[in-house]
Amino acid sequence: VILDAISDMLTPRRPLAGRHAIVTSGPTHEAIDPVRYLANRSSGRQGHAIAQALAEAGARVTLISGPVALPDPPGVTTRHVVSAREMHDAVRAALPAEIAVMCAAVADWHVEPQARKLKKTGVAPTLTLVENPDILADIAHHPARPELVIGFAAETETLLDHAAAKRIRKGCDWILANHVGAGSDVMGGNDNEIVLITQAGADVWPRMSKTEVAARLTSRIIEALK
Amino acid sequence: VILDAISDMLTPRRPLAGRHAIVTSGPTHEAIDPVRYLANRSSGRQGHAIAQALAEAGARVTLISGPVALPDPPGVTTRHVVSAREMHDAVRAALPAEIAVMCAAVADWHVEPQARKLKKTGVAPTLTLVENPDILADIAHHPARPELVIGFAAETETLLDHAAAKRIRKGCDWILANHVGAGSDVMGGNDNEIVLITQAGADVWPRMSKTEVAARLTSRIIEALK
Repeated sequence: VILDAISDMLTPRRPLAGRHAIVTSGPTHEAIDPVRYLANRSSGRQGHAIAQALAEAGARVTLISGPVALPDPPGVTTRHVVSAREMHDAVRAALPAEIAVMCAAVADWHVEPQARKLKKTGVAPTLTLVENPDILADIAHHPARPELVIGFAAETETLLDHAAAKRIRKGCDWILANHVGAGSDVMGGNDNEIVLITQAGADVWPRMSKTEVAARLTSRIIEALK
Repeated sequence: VILDAISDMLTPRRPLAGRHAIVTSGPTHEAIDPVRYLANRSSGRQGHAIAQALAEAGARVTLISGPVALPDPPGVTTRHVVSAREMHDAVRAALPAEIAVMCAAVADWHVEPQARKLKKTGVAPTLTLVENPDILADIAHHPARPELVIGFAAETETLLDHAAAKRIRKGCDWILANHVGAGSDVMGGNDNEIVLITQAGADVWPRMSKTEVAARLTSRIIEALK
């Protein structure tokens, strides 16, 4: 027992040593023309916290981040991307991995960008949206699919039904669903309210900081990969 | 002469003392639904530098800033807004003023926001854009029009023709035109390339830092208000 304690002090527990985790974080920005873009609200705080927690648990972590105002987490390899298509390419290039946590708020659509700046002509222009690649579904069905594929669902209503359906539709193992509707201050804030949806059902987590969500998720990942 | 020099050392020159300047800076974000928005690229660096330079020259400055990752400049009253309509209201509420420098990259359009998050349904949605208020033209034609109304033009081509036409169309006194097209690194960078367009013609400034642009513009404003 004494030797175990000394060993713990000398080598911190690194239960995810030897594992590679891919984490996406932040929003994507989809260019409309040289000065305008379509974006998703996302501070990147939750994804960056998860990347750091996985690295602290010993995993080798590749963080693929959209445009955020956060520093790169220590001990993590960070790749910076702007659009959903760039993020998709970076995720595929980072394979193989045992763990994928797709936390980024990826734009569902992009607009065919215009080389020239749109001009006001008196007639309001119409933007036709083109669907982006579905990074989560793609990695969940990839030949090199990670053992554990985890997605996020930001929902404004009927949270559980949508998120549970999303888990099955995307082919991922877990969904972390959170509520982002009016009256919620989750977007850009420090706290998060999570329901973890697995094949076994739904696990409602109390409101906690994004750092605590990252630690709790990391514990669950360590359990699942044992 | 000696007394003048001592007086200069004791009271720094504040040639804009007693003047009120309204400066807008940064982008606007136009909500599409609770998680998506339409935005303009703008770091806010140029507008924030101008607000600070005017304050250092003795002006009372109201800075109306869209979402940026910059600290509020010292000695300036900063009001934070998100959308073009909020910026418009804040500019009107800040009147009267002798100087208006409209540096923000205001979105020309907004989308009627949706209370629920857009869902992927297989059919790509179409966003119909609704024109935003024209803050520069509005302040240039306001009953309480500032003595000096200065706009910016970010152009990707035929810079001078467009910017000169904009000066007349908007009813403002000066336009600072800058080139933001492909190959230019002005957006988000430290430097700027300006052509100052006045009734007297066009004055091409050499490439310089945004702080130097702010100082040079402030000198021109001091001259004009003498």
